[in-house]
Amino acid sequence: MRLRNKPNAPEILASYPQYVPQKPENLKGSWKKKFKNKRSIHIEVGTGKGKFIHGMAKLHPDINFIGVELQASVVIRALEKQIEEPLPNLQLLHVSGGELTQYFDSNEVDRIYLNFSDPWPKNRHEKRRLTYKTFLAVYEDILVTSGEIHFKTDNQGLFEYSLVSFSKYGMVLQSVCLDLHNSNYEGNIMTEYEEKFSAKGNRIYRTEVRFQSKSQD
Amino acid sequence: MRLRNKPNAPEILASYPQYVPQKPENLKGSWKKKFKNKRSIHIEVGTGKGKFIHGMAKLHPDINFIGVELQASVVIRALEKQIEEPLPNLQLLHVSGGELTQYFDSNEVDRIYLNFSDPWPKNRHEKRRLTYKTFLAVYEDILVTSGEIHFKTDNQGLFEYSLVSFSKYGMVLQSVCLDLHNSNYEGNIMTEYEEKFSAKGNRIYRTEVRFQSKSQD
Repeated sequence: MRLRNKPNAPEILASYPQYVPQKPENLKGSWKKKFKNKRSIHIEVGTGKGKFIHGMAKLHPDINFIGVELQASVVIRALEKQIEEPLPNLQLLHVSGGELTQYFDSNEVDRIYLNFSDPWPKNRHEKRRLTYKTFLAVYEDILVTSGEIHFKTDNQGLFEYSLVSFSKYGMVLQSVCLDLHNSNYEGNIMTEYEEKFSAKGNRIYRTEVRFQSKSQD
Repeated sequence: MRLRNKPNAPEILASYPQYVPQKPENLKGSWKKKFKNKRSIHIEVGTGKGKFIHGMAKLHPDINFIGVELQASVVIRALEKQIEEPLPNLQLLHVSGGELTQYFDSNEVDRIYLNFSDPWPKNRHEKRRLTYKTFLAVYEDILVTSGEIHFKTDNQGLFEYSLVSFSKYGMVLQSVCLDLHNSNYEGNIMTEYEEKFSAKGNRIYRTEVRFQSKSQD
């Protein structure tokens, strides 16, 4: 089902409230109720066309997944996948990553995925990077204590920046992989970007980082 | 001057006490007196044939450098450089990196360099890696508060391991570079290994990491 070329993306999204919740601010603190279970919630910030989050939801039916994406035109692509192959443990959220505290309560999310985020390479755009400290503060708020971010990218500059940003924020690196596709990591679900750029020979970098206990706050 | 093929390396080292101090345990706490100034002290652990530490000492005459190397046969190579071109701000220390607290007082060292350390790739040899936590504890002891380690290697596995080891120890990454020779980093002094392996096309990885304040102890 191809919806993406239709100009009225927001209206299309509104017509599938079972997959893209309307008034998601009302779900704050109630996502497990929405999923009708008490399982862990993993979200992807910047879910793009949804290949990763849909693949993860399929691979891990025992976890609830939410794909967060601001651009309506690409949420549409993720919605197509959900219409083609509906998964009960997957929801799409058409909001900004910087405003997640409006949609998730403190400690409501168990893990956050960041995949091939926009590198915003110019120094003056540092604040737009999804691994900038203001975003980390948002993630820390909505994540459970010692919650993890799993981050991958093919962008060397963004990866270097992000490792330092995580560390300076006080997060602890749990693992670092500098060549994911030539490593022994199992269960990797590729994003659209990842397929395209790894085929060109780009290395994929990946890290898992954990927020420290909030008990020191 | 080529001394390296002589079998009696320890005796040769002993005959140049002006460059390789004898009974260095007596210098613990007195290195600035030895250098006859109050300048910063930077040490390289695993100095090998000494190209890096000799080059650094030449480039930074306002800093005192000490090259630490356990193997007599390679300290000899570093000694040759010092004999050829004596530098007043360079000393060689023929001891083990794990025993540095015998030769340096707490807070006596301002910075530590680790360059192309042996990767010890087998898991069962993890404790031998110079970035294993027991070594970090030694470095933390002899370094000033918020002292830094500057680490570079071409070994992907060791670099991945070390970033995680630093982070889990509570150190903060100040910078990460995943391709040193194609970066804008200035003032890089290459080691013998670095010249050889970068010529083969190997990437050089580099990071600067800082111990957190000791005030929490």
